[in-house]
Amino acid sequence: MPPAAPRSGEAIFSSVERVNAELFTLTYGAIVRQLLTDLEEVEEVNKQLDQMGYNIGIRLIDEFLAKSNVSRCADFKETAEMIAKIGFKMFLGVSASVVNWDADGSCCSIVLEDNPLVDFVELPDTCQGLFYCNILSGVIRGALEMVAMKTEVTWIRDMLRGDDAYELQVKLLKQIPEEYPYKDDE
Amino acid sequence: MPPAAPRSGEAIFSSVERVNAELFTLTYGAIVRQLLTDLEEVEEVNKQLDQMGYNIGIRLIDEFLAKSNVSRCADFKETAEMIAKIGFKMFLGVSASVVNWDADGSCCSIVLEDNPLVDFVELPDTCQGLFYCNILSGVIRGALEMVAMKTEVTWIRDMLRGDDAYELQVKLLKQIPEEYPYKDDE
Repeated sequence: MPPAAPRSGEAIFSSVERVNAELFTLTYGAIVRQLLTDLEEVEEVNKQLDQMGYNIGIRLIDEFLAKSNVSRCADFKETAEMIAKIGFKMFLGVSASVVNWDADGSCCSIVLEDNPLVDFVELPDTCQGLFYCNILSGVIRGALEMVAMKTEVTWIRDMLRGDDAYELQVKLLKQIPEEYPYKDDE
Repeated sequence: MPPAAPRSGEAIFSSVERVNAELFTLTYGAIVRQLLTDLEEVEEVNKQLDQMGYNIGIRLIDEFLAKSNVSRCADFKETAEMIAKIGFKMFLGVSASVVNWDADGSCCSIVLEDNPLVDFVELPDTCQGLFYCNILSGVIRGALEMVAMKTEVTWIRDMLRGDDAYELQVKLLKQIPEEYPYKDDE
């Protein structure tokens, strides 16, 4: 039997349990504020948010695989499309698109069409170096590491810093060949 | 024209923007873990979670009032019912009930029928004093303060501590009479 086709992000999103986006936004804002108070250095806050995201991503990937019917992506290009089209939709309820591929297909950008993390957010002048949404880059990095792709994820554009979009660059550093402890026909 | 009747929590919840509950749960877990690392003392983490909730509550009340059509509650009893029946439903998508009223109607318990904050959570032995969901008590305290009710909110039962339910006691300490800078007929 051929594997089931991947489900659309929309369909998954409408079938899973959800919470009010404003509560999520305010809760995330409370984390960032807390980290700014505790850590003082904006650079440290960026690191910490990324690390928190990583810890979330390595667990969220299970939910993604279980609910999406996505099994194995042919290559990094397909993987990036799955993150943008299914991942962002099923977790945040927003759409994203993949652009700016480099020549050898190992680096691209994910552009968010909407970003529920930043509703009501304005950064004070003291936080100019902050990547407010850095948890997202960590989530992607963590999730991809669980499917054997080591990546570097960085913000290229950030509307809170005055840019015209939210753009995350995802660069594939290393693909770890998956080794099975058993043979396929066992 | 009489004021519109309050909308059901269910109706509001299905009409507002939402995010995946698992993402919310894992994000909240990441906060708690972060605080445990940064603050070391469990008692400090409880305080900090409560304070974060308070900061969320003083803003979430606006969304509650705007979306629910709830205007003025006759008394603290009605207020508690609104929190349980509409508030929990519209933000977390869960039901709650109000029980254990004291004789003079100034203290009751809110019992949660489900609690999305604690999915996949198990507390290690080192965290026995932790009130993992303390953000919720802070949210209620903050929201009520914005409608002129000073309260004390404490956990009576907590399933992560081995109890058979999640029960929050809400005690009205002081009701600040609302004073209007204008007369009703102005």
